[in-house]
Amino acid sequence: MADREVAIIVGVGSGLSAALARLCAKEGMAVALAARNTDKLIGLVRETGAMAVACDASQPADVDRLFATVADTLGAPSLVVFNASRRVRGPITELDPAEVRESLMTTGYAGFLVGRAAARAMLPDGKAMGNGSILFTGASASVKGYPQSAPFAMGKFALRGLAQSMARELAPKNIHVAHVVIDGGIRQGGDDPRGPQRGVDGLLEPDALARAYLDLHRQHRSTWSWELELRPWVESF
Amino acid sequence: MADREVAIIVGVGSGLSAALARLCAKEGMAVALAARNTDKLIGLVRETGAMAVACDASQPADVDRLFATVADTLGAPSLVVFNASRRVRGPITELDPAEVRESLMTTGYAGFLVGRAAARAMLPDGKAMGNGSILFTGASASVKGYPQSAPFAMGKFALRGLAQSMARELAPKNIHVAHVVIDGGIRQGGDDPRGPQRGVDGLLEPDALARAYLDLHRQHRSTWSWELELRPWVESF
Amino acid sequence: MADREVAIIVGVGSGLSAALARLCAKEGMAVALAARNTDKLIGLVRETGAMAVACDASQPADVDRLFATVADTLGAPSLVVFNASRRVRGPITELDPAEVRESLMTTGYAGFLVGRAAARAMLPDGKAMGNGSILFTGASASVKGYPQSAPFAMGKFALRGLAQSMARELAPKNIHVAHVVIDGGIRQGGDDPRGPQRGVDGLLEPDALARAYLDLHRQHRSTWSWELELRPWVESF
Amino acid sequence: MADREVAIIVGVGSGLSAALARLCAKEGMAVALAARNTDKLIGLVRETGAMAVACDASQPADVDRLFATVADTLGAPSLVVFNASRRVRGPITELDPAEVRESLMTTGYAGFLVGRAAARAMLPDGKAMGNGSILFTGASASVKGYPQSAPFAMGKFALRGLAQSMARELAPKNIHVAHVVIDGGIRQGGDDPRGPQRGVDGLLEPDALARAYLDLHRQHRSTWSWELELRPWVESF
Repeated sequence: MADREVAIIVGVGSGLSAALARLCAKEGMAVALAARNTDKLIGLVRETGAMAVACDASQPADVDRLFATVADTLGAPSLVVFNASRRVRGPITELDPAEVRESLMTTGYAGFLVGRAAARAMLPDGKAMGNGSILFTGASASVKGYPQSAPFAMGKFALRGLAQSMARELAPKNIHVAHVVIDGGIRQGGDDPRGPQRGVDGLLEPDALARAYLDLHRQHRSTWSWELELRPWVESF
Repeated sequence: MADREVAIIVGVGSGLSAALARLCAKEGMAVALAARNTDKLIGLVRETGAMAVACDASQPADVDRLFATVADTLGAPSLVVFNASRRVRGPITELDPAEVRESLMTTGYAGFLVGRAAARAMLPDGKAMGNGSILFTGASASVKGYPQSAPFAMGKFALRGLAQSMARELAPKNIHVAHVVIDGGIRQGGDDPRGPQRGVDGLLEPDALARAYLDLHRQHRSTWSWELELRPWVESF
Repeated sequence: MADREVAIIVGVGSGLSAALARLCAKEGMAVALAARNTDKLIGLVRETGAMAVACDASQPADVDRLFATVADTLGAPSLVVFNASRRVRGPITELDPAEVRESLMTTGYAGFLVGRAAARAMLPDGKAMGNGSILFTGASASVKGYPQSAPFAMGKFALRGLAQSMARELAPKNIHVAHVVIDGGIRQGGDDPRGPQRGVDGLLEPDALARAYLDLHRQHRSTWSWELELRPWVESF
Repeated sequence: MADREVAIIVGVGSGLSAALARLCAKEGMAVALAARNTDKLIGLVRETGAMAVACDASQPADVDRLFATVADTLGAPSLVVFNASRRVRGPITELDPAEVRESLMTTGYAGFLVGRAAARAMLPDGKAMGNGSILFTGASASVKGYPQSAPFAMGKFALRGLAQSMARELAPKNIHVAHVVIDGGIRQGGDDPRGPQRGVDGLLEPDALARAYLDLHRQHRSTWSWELELRPWVESF
């Protein structure tokens, strides 16, 4: 077991996380999946042999427990992916403050908690040099604040600021931090209703997206990207 | 009183807010100053005739009360400036989650609460068209995530995302939302100890900065800026 | 005459340059207008008392002669504005190379020639410290490359790169270099046919725009902007 | 021969182009190398079986001849890489206009000529849909104008504007245009004298860089990147 790479994927449910779990498993990695509700992960766990951990990533104690459990069970992670987010929409004047705070906690603060725990796991005992990759999932809202979508812009901008700060801080410690700007819809399941409207390859293919994440993890350290923007060929930008 | 413009400045204490209060008062505006602790505002209140309101801007009820008090006492605001922020520094592995959350609440979420309340005050009763300016104070950390400063990057990036989303949403409703990127130190008092080291005009002059904010407020609506970057001539960037 | 500020405006013809000439003249500055064809400047010269100089700004000798003439006649410039540009549009596969080169020369290279001459005029005899402002006019194409508009993107991106490099190099020498991103149409004359379609204040008012340029020139050097983005309130971005 | 992919690499000499030629050849592609002086390519041609074509990429006729020759000899290209650039440095006041124009022609205009020819080759006879990738090599100067380096900033900014415009225009025609921001030094040969100073993997490894280019070419079209930033782990940014 000591020889297997360990991957932790936080915020499972989307097409991306499932595809990434499959790809990591196929590449021989031990995979831990963290989600608030693990019931929906049963099929994926059975298919990939991954471990599922219930975790509200906006709660410090939950995140600490997640990383401790994985360390005890699978070993130290070399790949941590943060995919969680929560979108709240509406005119700025009508937004509910409690919902906006919740959105900011789930999209931004949870990213901090996971990123911090990952860095601690990859830099044990205050060592000067570590090892591994920490990847954060962004969106077009990470770089552009759309109208009637202030809370999502806040959370995603915050996550990007976190990723950029961590990339600058941890790269010289041999930990690769990167932020992926996904600009477009990710295809969900085989019969995504948006598919026909978007046309062939008009939604991001989860398998291609997962491959892009793994390629980031595998980049030679003389050519690291701190940010990667991905969109379907037909998506206007 | 109906003829006087009303300005609300949230997060008073820095050289900027005081200078802005003086300038607004001098231009004939009625000014309300909001801070957690209003004790330190006594001198400024006496000098400018401003009204001081105790307010923790990260608390929805406090922000609602602030805007209600100002509306009752001074009238509807046409200028709202959000200056609050809280910086937490340190290696990502050693940051305290509670402090980081507090920082995110003060720097980002409070900006949302103030921005939302300002928009509601400027767009009464769901009217299609409003009037006024909402200005957010950013920093170089708003556009660049520095190492060992993830929480500040998160808060300031989030505030920028908020401002950009609100600018896109509210500009066509005749409300000018802008974000000011202050890149450099603001001179504090007459004998700022950093002054000699930075050289002549090496720190942002509060009066010049306040003038830039007022100019933003007064921009003709055919030439609005949604963002303004300001730095001393000798500051490298 | 030694007490009058001297302004040079290169690329006259648009509503902006004329408004800026009027404003500078009104503020007591001596103004020189440079254009390929000075015939069209007759009315403006009569109105403002400005001096007109024929100049193809993409020709080094023409630019040198312009600055020499102004120095001899009006004195050293403290404000130089570069407004020239040439747009070529079309599918990338059908563009004419000679026209694209011409566009790049007029929009980018001419900016370099004017910027260099301005810097030389403001830093005489290799002095360490100078004085004055050099302003470049950009467009939304300066920061976004639109389809079927590669040549304009190339020229405007190049001009922005020039302005940013010059700003970093010359700010510590007390010369303020700034780049103005104009995002929208500028109102041309009193009966601009686009006006009704864009609505009230839907086109940038030349006088407001000219004021923004002058404000940049007058910014206190502890609060310089290297870039300013301006757009009508109803312009989507 | 009809089954072999054809790659054209313009601006050969750097470690990147040679590594890319080797990788493309190893992957079974037919490779054409274009450089002003093909003498220096003899060893690489012998090693890879590539075809060398003398070409001054800033001359329309040269670029047309290059693409015609490759089409006749190897077939239609599906990968075109533009690597040429020329750097001119110095204080803005002392730059030689003729050298600056030359730099702009080599770095920016040549990119346009190659990009246009590539698009024509990939979209024959005005077809609505094409096939292939066009990759442009940028630098940190593509996104940041450094002092005393205005000409390089102009050329590299222009190239980025070109690439972005072409990406927006050609992606929906199934042609992948991308821009690579290389931030750091590329290791030259086995004994690069900068190596020891930069430390292990402190210079971009040409083979890793070439792999990144090929990966861009091979990206699934539902997950295209229009820009990729690459830097060594120890490079500050």
